[in-house]
Amino acid sequence: MKTIIIDMDDVLADASARILEIFNELNGTNVDKSFFDNRNFYEFINSNGHKPYRPQLFEPGFFRNLTVMPDAQEVVKELSEKHKVYVVSAATEFPNSLKEKYDWMAEHFPFISWKNFMLCGDKSIVKGDVMIDDHEKNLKTFDGEALLFDAMHNKLLTGYHRVYNWQEIHKHLLNLV
Amino acid sequence: MKTIIIDMDDVLADASARILEIFNELNGTNVDKSFFDNRNFYEFINSNGHKPYRPQLFEPGFFRNLTVMPDAQEVVKELSEKHKVYVVSAATEFPNSLKEKYDWMAEHFPFISWKNFMLCGDKSIVKGDVMIDDHEKNLKTFDGEALLFDAMHNKLLTGYHRVYNWQEIHKHLLNLV
Repeated sequence: MKTIIIDMDDVLADASARILEIFNELNGTNVDKSFFDNRNFYEFINSNGHKPYRPQLFEPGFFRNLTVMPDAQEVVKELSEKHKVYVVSAATEFPNSLKEKYDWMAEHFPFISWKNFMLCGDKSIVKGDVMIDDHEKNLKTFDGEALLFDAMHNKLLTGYHRVYNWQEIHKHLLNLV
Repeated sequence: MKTIIIDMDDVLADASARILEIFNELNGTNVDKSFFDNRNFYEFINSNGHKPYRPQLFEPGFFRNLTVMPDAQEVVKELSEKHKVYVVSAATEFPNSLKEKYDWMAEHFPFISWKNFMLCGDKSIVKGDVMIDDHEKNLKTFDGEALLFDAMHNKLLTGYHRVYNWQEIHKHLLNLV
């Protein structure tokens, strides 16, 4: 039995989809995730006088209404029956998100107990065997196996074991004991 | 520079004082903290048909209005200037407490950044050099130095380095490098 640390935004919850909706609405653009396959996401959104989407992350409702990533529920449920699964989300930057993330988890991942749910600032004090995350800042201080969940803002990042979806994670962790 | 993990309830915030107020009000008793110096707290409150205080932990306002433990602000501020200080609170059992604990920290410990604040269920996935906590369940899975903060509900617990107040912690950690 292993301890698996799973991130929330862009790993369980499709934050990128909502971010692009907001960005396109604000800027009259029509970019989708694949637009960033070979582009630096942060450079693009901060260029050409684009209006920033980020203030909306602080607004009530943003985190409560995100859609679930494909196959996440089924795979995380199976993992949680065999291992110690913790959902660890960087949330304290966004005070409104705390209760919203709790409610979102209770709705979509009711099999994850409050005991296995953590809201934090930085993840450098988190230990475990496997961490699944879309941000290098979280993975680089982790002592166990780091899996980089593919996302529009990390396409150009190298040096990590990249996983593209929950089916792939399922296959990869199937034989974990 | 060390990583110091500090608990919130009964370490930074005087939860016990408020719990006894509620308990006394509910039961027409007049017990204070010293009443439990040689008694098992949990046995007493669950005996004699006493009305339980615990449901009130789930009510709005409980965590927001706790008083600060003596000398905690000054000592934690000094520690945070020399070390990486994280405040880690078991909070996800009480959904109402999430934002309240955030607001309480912002009011009383504004020098602790959101990056160094963590709300969790269990603390078995937390790593660091020193943990200050009043509950054995949190200290027993910690790999670093464990300091048991004296509290009315842990008086009979042995096998840990017990600290009685923040002045004592200050003296103990003064030469930590």
